[in-house]
Amino acid sequence: MTQLELARKGIILPQMRAVAEREGVEAEFIRQGIVNGTIVISHNTTRKDVVPYGIGQGLRTKVNANIGTSSDFGDVDTELAKLQAAVESGADTVMDLSTGGDISSIRREIIARSTVPVGTVPVYQAGIETIREHGAIVEMTVDDLFSAIEEHCRDGVDFITVHCGLTRSALDCLKQQKRVADVVSRGGAFMIGWMLHNDCENPLYEYYDRLLELARDFDVTLSLGDGMRPGCIADATDRAQMEELLIAGELVERAWQAGVQVMVEGPGHVPLNQIEANVKLEKSICKGAPFYVLGPLVTDVAAGYDHITAAIGGAVAAAAGADFLCYVTPAEHLSLPDPDDVREGVIASRIAAHAGDIAKGVKGAVQWDLEMSLARKRLDWEQQEKLSLQPELSRRVHHKHDTTGEACSMCGNYCAMRLVEDYLGISAGRC
Amino acid sequence: MTQLELARKGIILPQMRAVAEREGVEAEFIRQGIVNGTIVISHNTTRKDVVPYGIGQGLRTKVNANIGTSSDFGDVDTELAKLQAAVESGADTVMDLSTGGDISSIRREIIARSTVPVGTVPVYQAGIETIREHGAIVEMTVDDLFSAIEEHCRDGVDFITVHCGLTRSALDCLKQQKRVADVVSRGGAFMIGWMLHNDCENPLYEYYDRLLELARDFDVTLSLGDGMRPGCIADATDRAQMEELLIAGELVERAWQAGVQVMVEGPGHVPLNQIEANVKLEKSICKGAPFYVLGPLVTDVAAGYDHITAAIGGAVAAAAGADFLCYVTPAEHLSLPDPDDVREGVIASRIAAHAGDIAKGVKGAVQWDLEMSLARKRLDWEQQEKLSLQPELSRRVHHKHDTTGEACSMCGNYCAMRLVEDYLGISAGRC
Repeated sequence: MTQLELARKGIILPQMRAVAEREGVEAEFIRQGIVNGTIVISHNTTRKDVVPYGIGQGLRTKVNANIGTSSDFGDVDTELAKLQAAVESGADTVMDLSTGGDISSIRREIIARSTVPVGTVPVYQAGIETIREHGAIVEMTVDDLFSAIEEHCRDGVDFITVHCGLTRSALDCLKQQKRVADVVSRGGAFMIGWMLHNDCENPLYEYYDRLLELARDFDVTLSLGDGMRPGCIADATDRAQMEELLIAGELVERAWQAGVQVMVEGPGHVPLNQIEANVKLEKSICKGAPFYVLGPLVTDVAAGYDHITAAIGGAVAAAAGADFLCYVTPAEHLSLPDPDDVREGVIASRIAAHAGDIAKGVKGAVQWDLEMSLARKRLDWEQQEKLSLQPELSRRVHHKHDTTGEACSMCGNYCAMRLVEDYLGISAGRC
Repeated sequence: MTQLELARKGIILPQMRAVAEREGVEAEFIRQGIVNGTIVISHNTTRKDVVPYGIGQGLRTKVNANIGTSSDFGDVDTELAKLQAAVESGADTVMDLSTGGDISSIRREIIARSTVPVGTVPVYQAGIETIREHGAIVEMTVDDLFSAIEEHCRDGVDFITVHCGLTRSALDCLKQQKRVADVVSRGGAFMIGWMLHNDCENPLYEYYDRLLELARDFDVTLSLGDGMRPGCIADATDRAQMEELLIAGELVERAWQAGVQVMVEGPGHVPLNQIEANVKLEKSICKGAPFYVLGPLVTDVAAGYDHITAAIGGAVAAAAGADFLCYVTPAEHLSLPDPDDVREGVIASRIAAHAGDIAKGVKGAVQWDLEMSLARKRLDWEQQEKLSLQPELSRRVHHKHDTTGEACSMCGNYCAMRLVEDYLGISAGRC
C-alpha cells in the first residue's frame, strides 16, 4: 500500500514522523495533509538512506535543483559535482534532467549518491532513445514511453514529471493563441511533436490509469508537468496554459482515487502582478494539491541573472501559497549550468522560499531572522556568520576590508545601532 | 524660481522635455506631475552637464547606488571607481554617503565627475566633523548642521536626505516599542543621540522653514529620511516607523507650499506581505509624493546575498507603486562595498525596477521583454546579447560551453522552441 492509502487508514509512517519532527509540527498534521492531498512525501518504496521531505501546505517551502547532461555535455562526473553542490548549498530535492550520454547509468549514479529525493522526466529518455534509434521523436511508441517510466520507477526515482494534462484540447488553444514563444517545455515539445505528427491524443492522458498503476506500485509521486508553461512575459496566463491546468485538476482527483500522491507544476515566465492569481488558481482548481513552480521569472531580459529574476517570482509565489520552488541558475537561457551556477541558483531560491515562509507564517520561519537580528544588534560576528545562508561567504565578505572597531567597515566608528544604544541607554538611565 | 514654481505657472522647462522624451510621455504630463508633487526632477540649479531624471508616478522606476568612504576607508579613487561602476551598470542616480577622509573634497570630486544626479546626507558631515573636533555628536550646534546643508547645496548636490520627521513624538514611540534592532539609520542615530542628550526637538523639524529656504535657493529636492526605518523583520511597520511617516506627510505639504520638490524615504527590512501596505500608506499619507525605498529586504538571514533579498522586496515595492529604489549590494551588513559589489547591486536593483514596471504597466516596459523573447524564439544570439542587461556577461555565459547546434548548451539538439516550431509548422501546413 502507498503512503496515501496507509495514511487514510490512520497509520503514521516513520517518514511522516521524521517530516513532522523536522518541521516542528505534529505527525498527525502530516498524516492528515497526505490524506487531504495538500502534503506529499516523495519517497520511492525501493529507496533507502534518503532524508524524506514533506512538500505542501503548512510546511517550509522546498527548493529543487535541476541537474543533468545535455546532448553537448554527457559527462557523469560533472553531474555528480553538481549534485554535491546542490545538496551542500541546501537543495531539498534534485531532478536529473539528463538528455545526453548514457542516460540510464547517469540516473542510477545520481540516485545512488543522492541523500535527497530525486525526480526525473522519463519522456526525455523515451524521446531521445527514439531519436537516436529512429531519427525522430514521432516514431516513439506508447510502450516505449511507458517502459521508460517503469525503468525510472524501478531505479528508485521519487517523483516524475509527466505532462498528462497536455491534451489535444490544450493544443487547440495553443494553435489559436498565436504565442510569441510557443512552447519552452522540452517534455511538452516532445509530446506535442508526437501528437501533431501521429494525430493522436497524448498517451499520458489517454492511458493515465496505466501510469497510475506504475506510480502506485513504487509509491512514486506524480508531478503533473506544464508543457504549456509560458516562455515569455507576453505569453503568461493564457488560454493554453489555463486549459492544461483545468485538465490537471481532473487528473489530481484521479490520482488521489488511485492512492497516488500528486503535485502540479506551474510557470515559468509570469509578470509580478499575475503570480498570486496563478497560485490561487492552482490551489482552487487542483483542490489544494502542492504547487511546484519554475521560477517564476518576472522579466525576460535578465539573461545571466535569472537566478535573481526567479527569486523575485519565487518569493511572491511562495508567499501566495506555492509549496515547492524549482531553482533557476544564472546560466538559464544561455548555457548548461556548472557547479557554481548550481550553488548560486540554490541559494537564490532558498532566499525566495524563506521570504515566502515569513510572509505566509510558516512555523519557525521568523525565529531564524530574529536570532540573526539579535546577533547583529550585539555585533556578534561569529553568531551572524553561523546563522548566514552561506557562513563561509559571510565571513569572507566581512573580512574583505580591515576595520578598527567592532562594527563592520561600512559604518566603521559610526555604527547606528551602537550609537543609539549608547544614547538610549543613557537616556533610559536618566528617566 | 524653482522648477515646481515654474511648472505651476504652466512653464515647461528643457529638463521636463528631456525627461518626457526619454520616458515616451508628453512634456505636459511631466509638468503636471511636478505641479501635483507626484513627479520630481532632482536638479540643482548650479549643476551643468547632467542628464536630468524624472522620478515618480507613471515613469520608469529609478535606481540609486550608494557610494562613499567610511571611517576605515577614505580613498577618493576607490569612490570614483565605484561611481563609474554605478553609472556604467545603469544607476539613475548616486548618493555620496562618505563618512571618512576629506568629506568635502570627495563630494566635490564625485559631483564634478557624475553624469547622473547626486544625493547626499549632510548630517553625516556635520556630525562627523563635530565628533572629530569635539569628541561627540551631541556638541553639534544647529548652525553646524545648517552650514553643512548649505555647503552641500552650494556644491551642487541635487537631492539631500534630511531626517525631518524624526521628532520627539517618534522617539517616544521608539522608547515604548522595545525594538529588536532599535535604529539602523546612521543619520537617524546621529539625530537621536543629539536629541536625547540635549533634550531638544529635532532642529530639522523645528527649523524646517530654514531648510526649505535653502532647498528653494538651489532647487534641491528634499528626500525625507526615515530614521526609524526597521532594521530587522521583527521591527517592521511598527508605531515608531508610522509616527515618522505621519510627520513626513505634514512636511511634504509644507515643502510644496514653499515651492520645494520632495520625496519620502521608506524601509528597510520588511516582510514580503507588508510591502504593498507600506507603499500604499506612504502614497496616501504623503499625497502621492514619490516613494524612495531602501530594498526592502525581505529577510534578515541572507548576508552576502542581500542584493537578491533587496531585489525581491524592491520588485514588489515598485509593482505596488514605489518610484525609486535604493540598491543594496552583496556587501550589505558585512563590509563597505567595492566596485564589483556596486555593479551587482545596481543590476539586481534594475531587475527589480523593471519587474515592477512590467507589473504596474509603465509605458514601454513590456516592449523590451517582447523584443528579447522574439530574438530568443529566433535563436538570434546576437540580438539576445544586445538586449541583455549586461551584454558582455550574457555573451560570456552563452559561450561557456561549446555547442554543436543553433540552440544553447542547455538543450542542445532538443530545443523545445525549435522542435515545436517544426511540428506546428508542418501541422499548420496540413490543416
